[in-house]
Amino acid sequence: MIAGRVIGRIWATKRIDQLPQGALLEVETDGGGRLVAFDPLGCGEGERVVISQGSTAAGYFEDIKAQVDALIIGSIDEN
Amino acid sequence: MIAGRVIGRIWATKRIDQLPQGALLEVETDGGGRLVAFDPLGCGEGERVVISQGSTAAGYFEDIKAQVDALIIGSIDEN
Amino acid sequence: MIAGRVIGRIWATKRIDQLPQGALLEVETDGGGRLVAFDPLGCGEGERVVISQGSTAAGYFEDIKAQVDALIIGSIDEN
Amino acid sequence: MIAGRVIGRIWATKRIDQLPQGALLEVETDGGGRLVAFDPLGCGEGERVVISQGSTAAGYFEDIKAQVDALIIGSIDEN
Amino acid sequence: MIAGRVIGRIWATKRIDQLPQGALLEVETDGGGRLVAFDPLGCGEGERVVISQGSTAAGYFEDIKAQVDALIIGSIDEN
Repeated sequence: MIAGRVIGRIWATKRIDQLPQGALLEVETDGGGRLVAFDPLGCGEGERVVISQGSTAAGYFEDIKAQVDALIIGSIDEN
Repeated sequence: MIAGRVIGRIWATKRIDQLPQGALLEVETDGGGRLVAFDPLGCGEGERVVISQGSTAAGYFEDIKAQVDALIIGSIDEN
Repeated sequence: MIAGRVIGRIWATKRIDQLPQGALLEVETDGGGRLVAFDPLGCGEGERVVISQGSTAAGYFEDIKAQVDALIIGSIDEN
Repeated sequence: MIAGRVIGRIWATKRIDQLPQGALLEVETDGGGRLVAFDPLGCGEGERVVISQGSTAAGYFEDIKAQVDALIIGSIDEN
Repeated sequence: MIAGRVIGRIWATKRIDQLPQGALLEVETDGGGRLVAFDPLGCGEGERVVISQGSTAAGYFEDIKAQVDALIIGSIDEN
């Protein structure tokens, strides 16, 4: 997995049907990379998250074959 | 997923049979990388897109086993 | 696989159900990258480890479909 | 996919049995990376090619389980 | 695939059971990256090798589900 911080949200009205409804968040990863991840947890801007990638992320969607290759799997406790 | 901007289109007359007909777009990803992605949405040069990669992208093609590992899944709303 | 050194542990109280209980360790990989890996071996901070990634890592979990794409598979002998 | 230019060919007499006979070409990818890709198209040095990677590439081989994770899927038209 | 040069061997006494017995070699890849790859060919330090990665590499192991995501598939002829 990779850790990073949510820096924004994107909307894509023009999209393939297989893209599930839900938030697509932009994340700056530790090290300075950029990803767009599907968010099933309701994370907000500035929140630190853990992201799983690849077919492992796609496996989260049970009954559909979703073209999602990056998934927020947890929000990192900060305190 | 990864976000980027379409910077051109490539043609490959000499190709394997398993490569589906359709546009292959060159995309400059956020961070400066370069990808070639299959485009089922009819995107044009300069458009911002979201790309899914790996076997997840290949799963988009239902009845064929396509050797496509990068797929444009949405066009990012800009306004 | 990739080698690296454990530099910390993260906690994520807010998480998807498919994330197995167990330690999530932050690892600095050789070359300076950062990963978060699931640790089934009880490794500690400062320990050198080997990490497997992708669907291969997820395959470690036998009866569940875990969204884990990085797994510590060994602790490197240092002496 | 990723685009690049063929810069050479490698031979590996000592190899695993699962590696199919055929050309293994060295490719410099756009951005300056280096890959070794299986070439089913008969490409030559200096030719611009498109490469598919990962399990998607391995799926090209129908009756065998080939340990090939990079495949030239097309030669880019240049004119 | 990716080419590189063997720069050492690692031992991991504390390891998961699914890691097959065999050499784990450290490889410096062309471009300067670092990988740890399973070696079924008996390669030595300084030898140039080709490495396959991901689930494709794991598929080499026929009867077991091995958490191996990098496999030396050939030794590059140098002369």
